[in-house]
Amino acid sequence: MSKTIRIEKRILEKNDVVAARLRQRFADIVVVNIMSSPGAGKTTLLEETVKRLSGKTTIGVIEGDIATDYDAQRVESAGAGWVVQINTGGVCHLDAGMVEQALDSMPEKLGLLVIENVGNLVCPSGFDLGDDYKVVLASVTEGLDKPKKYPGMYRKSHAMVLNKIDLSPHVNVSPAAFVKEALDVNPALTVFQTSATAGTGLDEWCGWLSALKKPANA
Amino acid sequence: MSKTIRIEKRILEKNDVVAARLRQRFADIVVVNIMSSPGAGKTTLLEETVKRLSGKTTIGVIEGDIATDYDAQRVESAGAGWVVQINTGGVCHLDAGMVEQALDSMPEKLGLLVIENVGNLVCPSGFDLGDDYKVVLASVTEGLDKPKKYPGMYRKSHAMVLNKIDLSPHVNVSPAAFVKEALDVNPALTVFQTSATAGTGLDEWCGWLSALKKPANA
Repeated sequence: MSKTIRIEKRILEKNDVVAARLRQRFADIVVVNIMSSPGAGKTTLLEETVKRLSGKTTIGVIEGDIATDYDAQRVESAGAGWVVQINTGGVCHLDAGMVEQALDSMPEKLGLLVIENVGNLVCPSGFDLGDDYKVVLASVTEGLDKPKKYPGMYRKSHAMVLNKIDLSPHVNVSPAAFVKEALDVNPALTVFQTSATAGTGLDEWCGWLSALKKPANA
Repeated sequence: MSKTIRIEKRILEKNDVVAARLRQRFADIVVVNIMSSPGAGKTTLLEETVKRLSGKTTIGVIEGDIATDYDAQRVESAGAGWVVQINTGGVCHLDAGMVEQALDSMPEKLGLLVIENVGNLVCPSGFDLGDDYKVVLASVTEGLDKPKKYPGMYRKSHAMVLNKIDLSPHVNVSPAAFVKEALDVNPALTVFQTSATAGTGLDEWCGWLSALKKPANA
């Protein structure tokens, strides 16, 4: 499979050139890249986040999906200051070039830019989008084995939001045990436990998010 | 993005050559490729399937994962006649070359070969593995919007197993509405509604699976 690996290396190098350009453009905006399996609850979390924070700061959102603009509509209705939908066609992740193309209409002043990646626990973590913080959103319904089965995603992330904890009794997955599995893979993860639909844990998550600073090396 | 598309085309053409070779090798075995999001319940469904069918036929299983051999262990314990684990490293799907490499120890006589793909709703559907039938496993916990957000997966599949229907009241997703969304994308889908953990719908699924014939054009 050496040929495949060489192609991937070339694609990633090209991505990094664009990501460096994005990082210059994002010099004054904290950028958070949220990644998860399909249906873990990224958009619902984002709707609730926007509702809570939009009085305090202007939140921009870039929505990544294979198809449809369902998510952009939802986040816009929740009150996001600026929303763009990227449809990747068949591509299973966002790359820096797609993000760059989406920025034409970006307003000068944004307090926070959140990029909701394509639902996929594998490839999105490999592409630098000029982001400052990567967040993996997990759901208790996925089962305890996921951090160790998808270690790259957990290793690359700064924080894990463990969502749908209200379903924990129904799926026989303990949030504490899931957190332990995730910390086994990446002990540096900042952890939040939420139910985005029930409102649990959202104050802690929103508090962390709104306190984020531009990293020193950005 | 024309460059990316050209690279993808070359990879897919190379894959198709190997898949054609696999199809010759699988001349007397029905091969089913099961795909889903991470944590939709592929392995649990497969464990229950093997338990129910292993007295009647010899089931071989190829397990695809980024990392770990958790799934191979589970399916072997359930009674599969032959199990191989493929670890793709960082690759988000199985390809025909990986499957070919896994066949060295395959016994002469298998009644059914099931390939459990990497958990991912995007790329796995694009790679022919020499399979006869593709099955997408969905879970009500993923939300109603998934068939239209991941249309390629639903279009390429012969059947959909909608799993975790016991959780339907807790996630406010009606199985009937999910089936409608899926049939909107692909009206030809054969549909099963299951709870693999509760045992619901497994007789119908196992009945269909064990009655599958080699397609006429194989």
